[in-house]
Amino acid sequence: MRARGLGQDDLRRHNLSAVLHRVHDRGQVSRAELTESTGLNRSTVGDLVSGLAAAGLVVEDRPEPAARARAGRPSLVVRPRPGAVSAVAAYVDVHALHVVRVGLGGQVLDRRREPHAPRPDSAGVARRIAALTAELAPAGWPERAGLVGVGVAVPGTVRSEDGSVAVAPHLGWEDVPLATLVGAAVAAELGTQVRVDVANDADLGVHAERLRGAAQGCTDVIYLCGTLGLGGGIVCGGRPLVGSRGFAGEVAHVSVDPAGRACRCGSRGCWESEALADAWALPFDLDAHDPRVAALVAGRLAVGDVVARRTRDRISRSYARGLASIANVFDPQVVVLGAGLWRDLWPEVSGDVLPWLQRLVIPVLRERLPVRLAGLGPDSTVLGAAELAFAPLLADPLGALGDRATA
Amino acid sequence: MRARGLGQDDLRRHNLSAVLHRVHDRGQVSRAELTESTGLNRSTVGDLVSGLAAAGLVVEDRPEPAARARAGRPSLVVRPRPGAVSAVAAYVDVHALHVVRVGLGGQVLDRRREPHAPRPDSAGVARRIAALTAELAPAGWPERAGLVGVGVAVPGTVRSEDGSVAVAPHLGWEDVPLATLVGAAVAAELGTQVRVDVANDADLGVHAERLRGAAQGCTDVIYLCGTLGLGGGIVCGGRPLVGSRGFAGEVAHVSVDPAGRACRCGSRGCWESEALADAWALPFDLDAHDPRVAALVAGRLAVGDVVARRTRDRISRSYARGLASIANVFDPQVVVLGAGLWRDLWPEVSGDVLPWLQRLVIPVLRERLPVRLAGLGPDSTVLGAAELAFAPLLADPLGALGDRATA
Repeated sequence: MRARGLGQDDLRRHNLSAVLHRVHDRGQVSRAELTESTGLNRSTVGDLVSGLAAAGLVVEDRPEPAARARAGRPSLVVRPRPGAVSAVAAYVDVHALHVVRVGLGGQVLDRRREPHAPRPDSAGVARRIAALTAELAPAGWPERAGLVGVGVAVPGTVRSEDGSVAVAPHLGWEDVPLATLVGAAVAAELGTQVRVDVANDADLGVHAERLRGAAQGCTDVIYLCGTLGLGGGIVCGGRPLVGSRGFAGEVAHVSVDPAGRACRCGSRGCWESEALADAWALPFDLDAHDPRVAALVAGRLAVGDVVARRTRDRISRSYARGLASIANVFDPQVVVLGAGLWRDLWPEVSGDVLPWLQRLVIPVLRERLPVRLAGLGPDSTVLGAAELAFAPLLADPLGALGDRATA
Repeated sequence: MRARGLGQDDLRRHNLSAVLHRVHDRGQVSRAELTESTGLNRSTVGDLVSGLAAAGLVVEDRPEPAARARAGRPSLVVRPRPGAVSAVAAYVDVHALHVVRVGLGGQVLDRRREPHAPRPDSAGVARRIAALTAELAPAGWPERAGLVGVGVAVPGTVRSEDGSVAVAPHLGWEDVPLATLVGAAVAAELGTQVRVDVANDADLGVHAERLRGAAQGCTDVIYLCGTLGLGGGIVCGGRPLVGSRGFAGEVAHVSVDPAGRACRCGSRGCWESEALADAWALPFDLDAHDPRVAALVAGRLAVGDVVARRTRDRISRSYARGLASIANVFDPQVVVLGAGLWRDLWPEVSGDVLPWLQRLVIPVLRERLPVRLAGLGPDSTVLGAAELAFAPLLADPLGALGDRATA
């Protein structure tokens, strides 16, 4: 437990990281706010900002006129340098591959979407991620420090040590070394090694929503996403729920009805089997894999179709039951609905779900459990994946640049 | 975020705390182990141990002959000084009040148990805790540093800021300022102010089981206890699950059967209403509040009673369903059954519950979810409550003594 000694280099790295993190997380930040938030003195902050500016990561300028209207000399504003560095983030959804380029500061700069057939081949997906990464690269890219890395989100269980997918049931993947596959494909496309990180889509979604979305400032969050499967990203006490072997957050198989339908997990009446695409598709004779399930159901509900209303009544209750069970256990500040069927259907079903939820949670939680749509819309997942790619740069701003330059 | 500066006094307090914590947690520890675990050099450790010995908290002696058989000069062994300091811990269970005296090092030195009627009066309970505290005190106690404090466990939700009970449904308590009541009653009995802390029984039980029981070294634990109610103490990533308002861990109201019995929470078919004392008592026309429910049911099962077997089959499935739901979400290393109905009945029901549990958990958890009886037996709760009382002394060994001496 003996702590390693710290020297001046460690101190500077730590402080550069604190400043760049702040600029990235906030999009832009005044020198005064940096002084306040880091607790460092003004000249140290000035020196750190100069270091980041010299490395081409940030620029400083005077604030917008509106902000200057207030009294006093306006503090310089620090922003990411446009076009300086960006990350590529991919989301391997069940129906499509989404690939975006995200700038320092968290803005989506460009995007591609390619539908794919159910259960896509993993090597093919890796090649498509690489091809789209090359396509999104501006001319001359990757220049020094241009591409910080590639982050990939998958609806499945990921081994953090090597970025391999243990199991992604709705992609039909098991033991897929995805980080390695994507790394090799990107290196072949770009002619250079690029760092690739992979994580679970819901874990990335909740991270992005806490940073810039509907759960900003929240320490206890339940984030739900998915269409065929139900993914859960849970944060408690400010930290992601991981579990002893990394399998925590499997909310899909919370039991909602012991007399319910058989679930792919071997049990019966799970939250996922009772309330996701399979359950909605069946009464309408739709294929659960059809990406239009939510739109078709919403259309039927809009015209007052009786089967649609009965289906909604029944499934809303099951969904509320699953949600109440986990809300009772976690006492969250907020529930966030990320990309997927329930976010798409929410305008049509919230009137059914919310009253059930109020009845099914324990009394102390009643009227205290806001359910919000993801603040980042369908982008929570890819923005979370971009954070994965930005993490090494944010942890060691100048060191990470140096590594890349000499790689 | 500016960190406070640290001086020599802080350093010494921190190191004394590290050493005393180790002695307390382990019961006894060699100087060599202290050097290893603290990362401090031998002379510093020697100085710290001397300081704690001079304050009357620990003694040093040569190890037992068996340990000395190994080569080399035996390291001195540091132990709590017998009779030096102790804590009083109380558990307000639904059927009885348990009060014990616990020594530094975690040994129960003396104990009392007083049955009480259902829904006992809170002021009366506070007076009984005070009377038993006085009864457990050896002659001349509290001497300087004799009684470190009183810790109280209740089956309910406790506000950590003031030790008041928000709600303890099976005691019939709501908004009871228990720490204040017990503090006043103890002061009246002993003629001196003693610190009183109150917390939830399951949260205390899981703490004790991680320290000295069936979950030692585990970072992800589900601990279940209770007879009329089901309490859950959950630890994830090494930290207790608290929730945004302190209400987390309410596993009692995880849904196990939407067609089940009405639950006191207003919902229906909750884990608690389907699988705790109410559910077991009904088929036998017993009063759920009868403390003998578990013994009576076990007796019927032992003679092969048909109603008892059917009841067991049905309730075991419900219990497994609730447990599988939360195990799927938390991915724990171990499930620990603490004091209460399920611990008492486990020998008669585990053969039914475990196969269901294996079927109902997700595949990655199968064969990887040990369910253990509490290693501390029925004492997990009181030993956890004693830790509450020891905490200030362990955080600041000499400061806490000084405070008490001058109080």
